[in-house]
Amino acid sequence: MIYLDNSSTTSPDAKAVSAALTAMECFGNPSSPHALGTVASMHLRDSRKVIASAMKCDVSEVYFTSGGSESNNTAIFGLAQKNSRHSKRIVTTDSEHPSVEEPLMQLEKNGFEIIRISTKGGELDYQALSDALSQKTALVTIMQVNNETGALYDLEKIREIIDDSECGAFFHSDCVQSFMKVSVPFSKYCDAASVSAHKIGGLKGCGALFLKKGIKISPFIFGGGQENGFRSGTENLVGIMGFAAATDSWNKIKSERNSYILSLKKLLMETLKESLGDKVSFNLPPKSVCSVLNFSLLGLKSETVINGLSAEGIYVSASSACSTHAKENRVLKAFGLSREESDSAIRVGISYSNTEEEIRIFCKKLDDISKKLLKK
Amino acid sequence: MIYLDNSSTTSPDAKAVSAALTAMECFGNPSSPHALGTVASMHLRDSRKVIASAMKCDVSEVYFTSGGSESNNTAIFGLAQKNSRHSKRIVTTDSEHPSVEEPLMQLEKNGFEIIRISTKGGELDYQALSDALSQKTALVTIMQVNNETGALYDLEKIREIIDDSECGAFFHSDCVQSFMKVSVPFSKYCDAASVSAHKIGGLKGCGALFLKKGIKISPFIFGGGQENGFRSGTENLVGIMGFAAATDSWNKIKSERNSYILSLKKLLMETLKESLGDKVSFNLPPKSVCSVLNFSLLGLKSETVINGLSAEGIYVSASSACSTHAKENRVLKAFGLSREESDSAIRVGISYSNTEEEIRIFCKKLDDISKKLLKK
Repeated sequence: MIYLDNSSTTSPDAKAVSAALTAMECFGNPSSPHALGTVASMHLRDSRKVIASAMKCDVSEVYFTSGGSESNNTAIFGLAQKNSRHSKRIVTTDSEHPSVEEPLMQLEKNGFEIIRISTKGGELDYQALSDALSQKTALVTIMQVNNETGALYDLEKIREIIDDSECGAFFHSDCVQSFMKVSVPFSKYCDAASVSAHKIGGLKGCGALFLKKGIKISPFIFGGGQENGFRSGTENLVGIMGFAAATDSWNKIKSERNSYILSLKKLLMETLKESLGDKVSFNLPPKSVCSVLNFSLLGLKSETVINGLSAEGIYVSASSACSTHAKENRVLKAFGLSREESDSAIRVGISYSNTEEEIRIFCKKLDDISKKLLKK
Repeated sequence: MIYLDNSSTTSPDAKAVSAALTAMECFGNPSSPHALGTVASMHLRDSRKVIASAMKCDVSEVYFTSGGSESNNTAIFGLAQKNSRHSKRIVTTDSEHPSVEEPLMQLEKNGFEIIRISTKGGELDYQALSDALSQKTALVTIMQVNNETGALYDLEKIREIIDDSECGAFFHSDCVQSFMKVSVPFSKYCDAASVSAHKIGGLKGCGALFLKKGIKISPFIFGGGQENGFRSGTENLVGIMGFAAATDSWNKIKSERNSYILSLKKLLMETLKESLGDKVSFNLPPKSVCSVLNFSLLGLKSETVINGLSAEGIYVSASSACSTHAKENRVLKAFGLSREESDSAIRVGISYSNTEEEIRIFCKKLDDISKKLLKK
């Protein structure tokens, strides 16, 4: 098996699996008053410390959630509501993840004005952003890294534009694809940011929301008052301890690991150019994350190629797994691709567990499949 | 270790641990278009079948969530909102779990009228319920089993009262403590019901909402459209497969298992009576679940007893883990206990993994501790 769909989800890191097993053994409820509860509560506290350290923020600013989608929903509904008396304007991009775009569509139905800034060519139109913020604004929500093209946006610059505008907006960023992979700490520039465990070697069903100290938004789930009253429900310790273990093992060798991933991406690009020549068209943003490469194989439908590769035990995707059922690829359209280019797009998501050998086999198989299909 | 706090959380069933490991190996994203995604998607489908079979409902009526608290929040906010044009009245009891009571308090702030029916002595006041439903009502939400006293309420009777009243209310039940332990299927009488994995040998961070076919409420998390558009976010397969495995292993020997748990509860009561005599006062509802026993040790503070037992490796609790930080025990007050009785209450949560030997040791240690403490 060659797994190159690491932007959809990743294989759990060995340390995450081991932490999950520990959590299943130390199965106490962190809220229980006895020694077993105390042990669970200490594991929870230690996990929060690890995530806070990786986020470069205070432990009190980390709230565990059930994943990136919940974090995005919580932040967007919560911050928009909180600031709705100030303004009903929200500024975002035209290529956010569905778990950002869909809540915004709900808010639009409820009277909010949503301005979607262009990300054509994978570049955020900072001038358009600045123009949009010339009025009072409730919320700016812009992802740090696009999940389909890998486009990397400049959070520092966005923060400057927001501050200069004096528009009064909160700034939230969906950092699910950038967490651990981009050196700029979102906590420095954002008021809120969403991350997910299963994109970095943790388990599905766990994530976190960074929420700057002093900002109080309405809880998303009411009840027993876990997560400092912000997110009730018995804590998912298997997921949380797995998340902390995966984060910790990445954090310790962050720059080496990300350099290695980047070297695989470069190798992939070079080998694809060599083997496929003009048939491959890279959908390359000016700045991008080390782990994502999107390209179109002109004349070939993504679906056919993905199925052909899957039959050989090689796994890539055409788009975000969260957009599988969408008719048209909204994100690649925003990038500026024609329908034909978009319909033939392949997204490769590279992980630290991939090897140069895997990249070469993938390119070889892709070449074989494209030759076979184009002959037909 | 003797663990008798199984109403707070349970030790994961061996089959749940094994299913969790399988989920970590088959780590694909169920929405991914390749073979690894398909395998994950099949696991998800199979898990849903198991839960639906145990709930005695259709697979299309099962929505996976991050746990009982999320299920309760989703159902209550969703159903109240859906029916709010019809009526702003909600009828509940005075001793619901915080993840029901707190959302209701939010709705109260937003103009809903909340009627809380008495559950004094662990008995639901069916006449008061009937009276409350003489007006148009949006929602009735009543738990099947109380998490602190084990009191069991009659869902069939509640359904009849709702139907007879023609009040137009939806009926939701928090079935977190009753799932697998009570033979009456909630799906027969409810429009919505909440269950949780970690109360029956599954993992924390996973639960489900039963929502009757044909009832459409607003999604709780918007995004990629997972769970038939109702609950977006990559599915927590480790939790879901663990939940299905724990449910399946319970379901196969349901009546034997529940009889065994009940026999331990009877043994516990008898042994406590023998050893502690007048010092123990049982907080016993007329009908109760097999797995919960609540009693007060007059003259002794719960906290002191729990700490004493904890030091010996025996774990019980004083109240719901979700209410640890509350000043006063709302549920036991509703039961009719005095402050003194409530402050000396111990809740024992019995599981199939407990033994007669453990029950005897627990009673012996409790006797030792109470003698020691009462002497002081």
